Amino acid sequence: MAAGTTDQQRSIGVEKLPHLTDYFPDLQTHTNPLQSNQFFHPSDGFYVTPTDVVLRHTAFDLAANFPATAAAPLQAYHRAGPRRSIYFEPGSVRAAIVTCGGLCPGMNTVIRELVVGLWEVYGVRRICGIVAGYRGFYSDNAVELNPKLVHNWHKRGGTALETSRGGFDLHKIVDAIQHQGFNQVYIIGGDGTMRGAVKIFDEICRRRLQVAVTGIPKTVDNDVGIIDQSFGFQTAVEMAQQAISAAHVEAESAVNGIGLVKLMGRSTGHIALHATLSSRDVDCCLIPEMAFYLEGSGGLFTFLDQKLKENGHAVLVVAEGAGQDLIPRTEAQKEERDESGNPVFLDVGGWLKTELRNWWARTHPGELFTVKYIDPTYMIRAVPANATDNSYCSLLAHSAIHGVMAGYTGFVPGPINRHYSYIPLKEVAEAKNEVNTRDHKWAWVRSVTNQPDFVRS
Amino acid sequence: MAAGTTDQQRSIGVEKLPHLTDYFPDLQTHTNPLQSNQFFHPSDGFYVTPTDVVLRHTAFDLAANFPATAAAPLQAYHRAGPRRSIYFEPGSVRAAIVTCGGLCPGMNTVIRELVVGLWEVYGVRRICGIVAGYRGFYSDNAVELNPKLVHNWHKRGGTALETSRGGFDLHKIVDAIQHQGFNQVYIIGGDGTMRGAVKIFDEICRRRLQVAVTGIPKTVDNDVGIIDQSFGFQTAVEMAQQAISAAHVEAESAVNGIGLVKLMGRSTGHIALHATLSSRDVDCCLIPEMAFYLEGSGGLFTFLDQKLKENGHAVLVVAEGAGQDLIPRTEAQKEERDESGNPVFLDVGGWLKTELRNWWARTHPGELFTVKYIDPTYMIRAVPANATDNSYCSLLAHSAIHGVMAGYTGFVPGPINRHYSYIPLKEVAEAKNEVNTRDHKWAWVRSVTNQPDFVRS
Amino acid sequence: MAAGTTDQQRSIGVEKLPHLTDYFPDLQTHTNPLQSNQFFHPSDGFYVTPTDVVLRHTAFDLAANFPATAAAPLQAYHRAGPRRSIYFEPGSVRAAIVTCGGLCPGMNTVIRELVVGLWEVYGVRRICGIVAGYRGFYSDNAVELNPKLVHNWHKRGGTALETSRGGFDLHKIVDAIQHQGFNQVYIIGGDGTMRGAVKIFDEICRRRLQVAVTGIPKTVDNDVGIIDQSFGFQTAVEMAQQAISAAHVEAESAVNGIGLVKLMGRSTGHIALHATLSSRDVDCCLIPEMAFYLEGSGGLFTFLDQKLKENGHAVLVVAEGAGQDLIPRTEAQKEERDESGNPVFLDVGGWLKTELRNWWARTHPGELFTVKYIDPTYMIRAVPANATDNSYCSLLAHSAIHGVMAGYTGFVPGPINRHYSYIPLKEVAEAKNEVNTRDHKWAWVRSVTNQPDFVRS
Amino acid sequence: MAAGTTDQQRSIGVEKLPHLTDYFPDLQTHTNPLQSNQFFHPSDGFYVTPTDVVLRHTAFDLAANFPATAAAPLQAYHRAGPRRSIYFEPGSVRAAIVTCGGLCPGMNTVIRELVVGLWEVYGVRRICGIVAGYRGFYSDNAVELNPKLVHNWHKRGGTALETSRGGFDLHKIVDAIQHQGFNQVYIIGGDGTMRGAVKIFDEICRRRLQVAVTGIPKTVDNDVGIIDQSFGFQTAVEMAQQAISAAHVEAESAVNGIGLVKLMGRSTGHIALHATLSSRDVDCCLIPEMAFYLEGSGGLFTFLDQKLKENGHAVLVVAEGAGQDLIPRTEAQKEERDESGNPVFLDVGGWLKTELRNWWARTHPGELFTVKYIDPTYMIRAVPANATDNSYCSLLAHSAIHGVMAGYTGFVPGPINRHYSYIPLKEVAEAKNEVNTRDHKWAWVRSVTNQPDFVRS
Repeated sequence: MAAGTTDQQRSIGVEKLPHLTDYFPDLQTHTNPLQSNQFFHPSDGFYVTPTDVVLRHTAFDLAANFPATAAAPLQAYHRAGPRRSIYFEPGSVRAAIVTCGGLCPGMNTVIRELVVGLWEVYGVRRICGIVAGYRGFYSDNAVELNPKLVHNWHKRGGTALETSRGGFDLHKIVDAIQHQGFNQVYIIGGDGTMRGAVKIFDEICRRRLQVAVTGIPKTVDNDVGIIDQSFGFQTAVEMAQQAISAAHVEAESAVNGIGLVKLMGRSTGHIALHATLSSRDVDCCLIPEMAFYLEGSGGLFTFLDQKLKENGHAVLVVAEGAGQDLIPRTEAQKEERDESGNPVFLDVGGWLKTELRNWWARTHPGELFTVKYIDPTYMIRAVPANATDNSYCSLLAHSAIHGVMAGYTGFVPGPINRHYSYIPLKEVAEAKNEVNTRDHKWAWVRSVTNQPDFVRS
Repeated sequence: MAAGTTDQQRSIGVEKLPHLTDYFPDLQTHTNPLQSNQFFHPSDGFYVTPTDVVLRHTAFDLAANFPATAAAPLQAYHRAGPRRSIYFEPGSVRAAIVTCGGLCPGMNTVIRELVVGLWEVYGVRRICGIVAGYRGFYSDNAVELNPKLVHNWHKRGGTALETSRGGFDLHKIVDAIQHQGFNQVYIIGGDGTMRGAVKIFDEICRRRLQVAVTGIPKTVDNDVGIIDQSFGFQTAVEMAQQAISAAHVEAESAVNGIGLVKLMGRSTGHIALHATLSSRDVDCCLIPEMAFYLEGSGGLFTFLDQKLKENGHAVLVVAEGAGQDLIPRTEAQKEERDESGNPVFLDVGGWLKTELRNWWARTHPGELFTVKYIDPTYMIRAVPANATDNSYCSLLAHSAIHGVMAGYTGFVPGPINRHYSYIPLKEVAEAKNEVNTRDHKWAWVRSVTNQPDFVRS
Repeated sequence: MAAGTTDQQRSIGVEKLPHLTDYFPDLQTHTNPLQSNQFFHPSDGFYVTPTDVVLRHTAFDLAANFPATAAAPLQAYHRAGPRRSIYFEPGSVRAAIVTCGGLCPGMNTVIRELVVGLWEVYGVRRICGIVAGYRGFYSDNAVELNPKLVHNWHKRGGTALETSRGGFDLHKIVDAIQHQGFNQVYIIGGDGTMRGAVKIFDEICRRRLQVAVTGIPKTVDNDVGIIDQSFGFQTAVEMAQQAISAAHVEAESAVNGIGLVKLMGRSTGHIALHATLSSRDVDCCLIPEMAFYLEGSGGLFTFLDQKLKENGHAVLVVAEGAGQDLIPRTEAQKEERDESGNPVFLDVGGWLKTELRNWWARTHPGELFTVKYIDPTYMIRAVPANATDNSYCSLLAHSAIHGVMAGYTGFVPGPINRHYSYIPLKEVAEAKNEVNTRDHKWAWVRSVTNQPDFVRS
Repeated sequence: MAAGTTDQQRSIGVEKLPHLTDYFPDLQTHTNPLQSNQFFHPSDGFYVTPTDVVLRHTAFDLAANFPATAAAPLQAYHRAGPRRSIYFEPGSVRAAIVTCGGLCPGMNTVIRELVVGLWEVYGVRRICGIVAGYRGFYSDNAVELNPKLVHNWHKRGGTALETSRGGFDLHKIVDAIQHQGFNQVYIIGGDGTMRGAVKIFDEICRRRLQVAVTGIPKTVDNDVGIIDQSFGFQTAVEMAQQAISAAHVEAESAVNGIGLVKLMGRSTGHIALHATLSSRDVDCCLIPEMAFYLEGSGGLFTFLDQKLKENGHAVLVVAEGAGQDLIPRTEAQKEERDESGNPVFLDVGGWLKTELRNWWARTHPGELFTVKYIDPTYMIRAVPANATDNSYCSLLAHSAIHGVMAGYTGFVPGPINRHYSYIPLKEVAEAKNEVNTRDHKWAWVRSVTNQPDFVRS
């Protein structure tokens, strides 16, 4: 039915990626040491070349956005993978790896794979773990890493290198990189960390240091743009099932029981949304991208009242960043900031629990009612990565290594439409992945969950 | 570095999809009943239209395949999702759901979501579960389904509708469809089942029945083409970790210990490959797409001998379809076929175990040696879907419903580059997803695992 | 070394158990219907008799408590199990099952096994589930139970019969029992519920009703006396590992990180203690039975300071009832009571978290410090029973049935030194199982964990 | 009802335990180093004394076995725990730990706790891990152990010391003990290993070496006598649920589906029995202690036929040692022995699968029928211990240490009626724990499962 072929013609525009030769045009290349592995017999298609690219956008409305931007080329990125020629002599590599910010499943897998990949595939022997975040660079807190030491790290949650928030002192950090002779810097962290990495990359360029910098976005919230998904996200969604299932059991076992689960998600509701889709026990899912209200027709209370009448219980999932505008704040709370400088969020779960109890006492005096509130945050983010994420973290780390060895710098490795690619660090530091409540995806997720749209009539 | 914009211009060609109006041009449309849900306030972008499309290919070599096919348009498929107008009056729908072939995690989720989606989103009230596969159509073996009945099915492994192999009798099946008045048929099954579904679709067209047919590919092996991945696959990879981990422990706890795990994969090694990437405990992964040999330089025994010398133990993963050409077969075995008509596979794991023991006894007489062989097949395929797959199965089932209600027929719903799309059933029945051991992906998976290429020098 | 045979002689005293014939001396007996099962061929030792007994105490200090009480007989209880003669004609049985109080893993298994055992072993066909606790008796809230309905209940957490606190109205309840013709009443609940069951039993005797009452103690805290352990306890200890493990990971991944986990245990520290012994990641375990203090030599802060210096992190487990005397309380809080009439506990975890932060800020200004606090309560108590508890719940329910069919009443079934026995309900309602911090067991648990004794020097 | 006090009087007889002072009467004692721990303030009841004893038997038939043996004293054992005086100066201890035989969950916990307990509680600094079983003593294969090294071992399955079967050479082993100066030997292994330990103990006595020997029984089958249960058993039962659950799903999803699971248990059916009780999905459980037959009235086939008619599927659990007398054996198979000298068992699962298929084909030609056979052995025994077993293993290892430091030798630590006790090694080496199919316990387990008694009418 319909369709056929469109008339509009499109070209492909490949995103420019910083490279060491931009700053050191005479840099020598070396043969990839894979060539000398006795069991290695690569096919013709083994090595990736600069003309291997990946399209960013794959869904179009031919009647709307496609022709409307016909003049613009289709955006593409360089594909990740091993190159035949590399720009580092393995014996001269001095790599630094650092983890910053909160925990996320898979951090240890990324670290482990960076070490194993550099060591076993490229023969690098000097790999340094910076301890406890950015401040580890200048506080002499580091540990030498090797495959034996990191052997089982992918089976442990957290980060064996320890982490901390803050501690970003640009000049001390770049001084440390310079004085300790690091020429490959792998930075694993969230959006604040990525903005720091951009500054480090710029300062390194300014000082004309022959150092490659790569950022590996770590955000359990999945709020980083361009890439398909951030590592640890599937594990977090999996673990969230336990909390939702417990809330469901508590609600079902009570008379007029409400199970309430708060999940991670400061500015985006991805975890809440995917956990809801996976569980099918959730009656309503509140996310930061969608305004909601409690009282009145079409509001949360009316909806829950109906659900309790139908089923005797209901389950509510709320992202930590949802409803922040609805919670009354003291003057002091309005000013508060956390160590990373982010505004402090009030506990939307605790607030909702109280509001629900007050509502019920007001409208159904004397009737039984229970709200069980679960906040599984620290139990989710501290687990080891599941199989899906472990595989992802392995490929991500190896993508980073191949890119750095190939001379790319100021970049981020990541899957775009399921192909590992290289994206300029600056682009990632500015991109944001939010749930678009106006697009098809949300729309029919809405239809699956059958929850209210919270539009006042 | 490099890149910029290519000169080649490309148009987009959208794959034609069969539609009921192809056969019944005067079919009336109806308003999507979502419009009358009191909590529903769709945004402008809610409904999907026929001009919403998804590109199939997203990775190109600009220097090779892209210009070489410049004349050909970029292939695209219709996007899945709810349509504003539908071609079925919900009150007149009589839906049939059937599951065929072996078990796969997620089957019950797909069934449950078909029922819940038809019932709650579209108001359909007559949904029939055909029991025990194709033969259930004509043996009067069926059960009425409703949301209350299927409520917890997504938390159970297997298929609550039961399944069986074979039993495909085209005319009896289409007679049954006709006589029982089904006008929507949802068929969940593997490649044999999909080929059967094509025949049913053709026969229905031939008889000019006003019946929409959709196929939902179920293959834990992930061997179906075009779509990103088949449902249950991530769960299978996750469960395989347990077996690999146990094999690893057995191998590590012994002197010269070999852990050997056989995983599903008749013609493709996807599970073995992804389980290997996720585990990082595997020294060698043998798949049907890659020939290997035991003796001689560059062979499996040499490689294992080296690993045992280095680490004292080794772990081997083998897909069930690997090495079938190496295993000696009796004349009788050469002729044997299973219920679905597939050639019977010999047990590559048992064979390898014996070969390994013989090799060691021959080459290291008197030295300790242990092979522990694990075949977790039935423990993997019978588990409920994990969160990732549950979410996938939900969206898949709802995609199927939206497509059928929109009048499409002879199609398959599935994710293409992470966007749910509709693909002609015939195209899917013929496509095959194999591991390409000559492309980039395999190549650098190879580099991650550092196993031999098994190329004789 | 030492020992040999003691001179002291001891007799055995068997605890008297209420029996229907105490009130109805002429009650007829019937043959156990097991005798008519076609596949059943019991050995001579199959049936249990009134002379089958189980000793309560098995550990003695021959030099101390044993001779000191030489005159007293060794205490013993009747052994549980099927009797050859029963005091109910199966066709005349009308059984009621009720669950009261908070959730505990295994409740559904107990319910399921009561139904399956009564139905399949004894041929009882009228089994009624009282819904939502004691109030269900008089509010006409009940459901007929049968094996098909309860088939999978043992795989679900919570209670399918729903539960509630309070609602105990003695006369309404016994009126309901009388009017609805129940002659077997199975009451599953905590210590408050057991005290209620005693009153029901007494009232039933007073009214001379021919009704057998049995209480099945449900307390995830394991605070009920005489029996070895309460059901759900092992599952709770297992689940607590997740929280402790997460707290450990959070603590290890931070600089001066403290992981703090609050576990269930109002008046007893069994869960905290066993979770500590199982985990081996815990540095200190605080329980209600042991006073502790924060400041000064030998206090918690000194101990933690030392652990942080040694390892860089520490993990603390605290039972919810610990330290209640240390937390400042407002006048209002001093008066507050929960629905069951218990004093409301303040959140010892939240209080400790604040105290720890204040202590550090005061004593180590400017140094990094993190406390991650996890309260997994609702995620623990809502899970299904693990294998150990499922088996226990099955044997417990069947013990209850065999006892009731044999005419016992006012009793509790439970394992004593690993043999299922019958204990007078009144004895259990008054017994309390606390951790004895002066005995051998605690003593050397203390030596395993190496934590402080909190004795001020 | 019934009971009251018996007239029979009983004394207590305490089992004699070998002690170093039996051979070295002048051995000096030392103060337990716990006394000098700064946080340690023991209560009066902290230390265990030789008069602390534990009764072995706690269930009696007052009308039968009790009076019948009135003359005999009640059997008791010394209680385990720390003693105030010890017979080793910690600085002079040289401990050896060895693991032999197959894997069992919890081995690494036992090793870890021996190391941590000796080091942290007693201040021992020379602890040697003998590698790869008995042969490690004389093949110079050993590793120095300390708390840092073993830190996370309790979270790993298998044995980090490696293990092997056979290799028992008495004189080489005792020579090695003598020459390397070990004075504490901890031997972890199965029944064969325990019989070896007895010989080592005897030879050490003969040579008048001042060496304490303790055996820690490791048998996942739970076939060791006197102690309540062997470590790893609860974990094995838990893991077996997965296999049974998968078999159940496979059976339920098929037409006339049989799920067949083979579980560990050479001479005893404890795992099969407990897994059956925990699962409630099993229709029949076959164990070595109970003869069964296939054909004829009251046989397995009749029973299964009835179950298939009732439910459409059935689940069968079989212990590996069951039915060995029914399986046809070649002459060669009759002679075969494994490395430990045990007769080789034929695969009862594979045999039953074939017999079942033949039976069906013979009696129901043309009807659908499926048998899915799962052997999860290696996936069960290689997992880490669960919480219940981890706690058990910790207390077991500390019991061993306390006993050895107190000068006991030739003993086994273990729980008797839930109190950790010391039992003479020789007694344990000869005891056997089988399922008694004639006693109460089996009898009413029988009634719970409702399976046939397999008594030919």
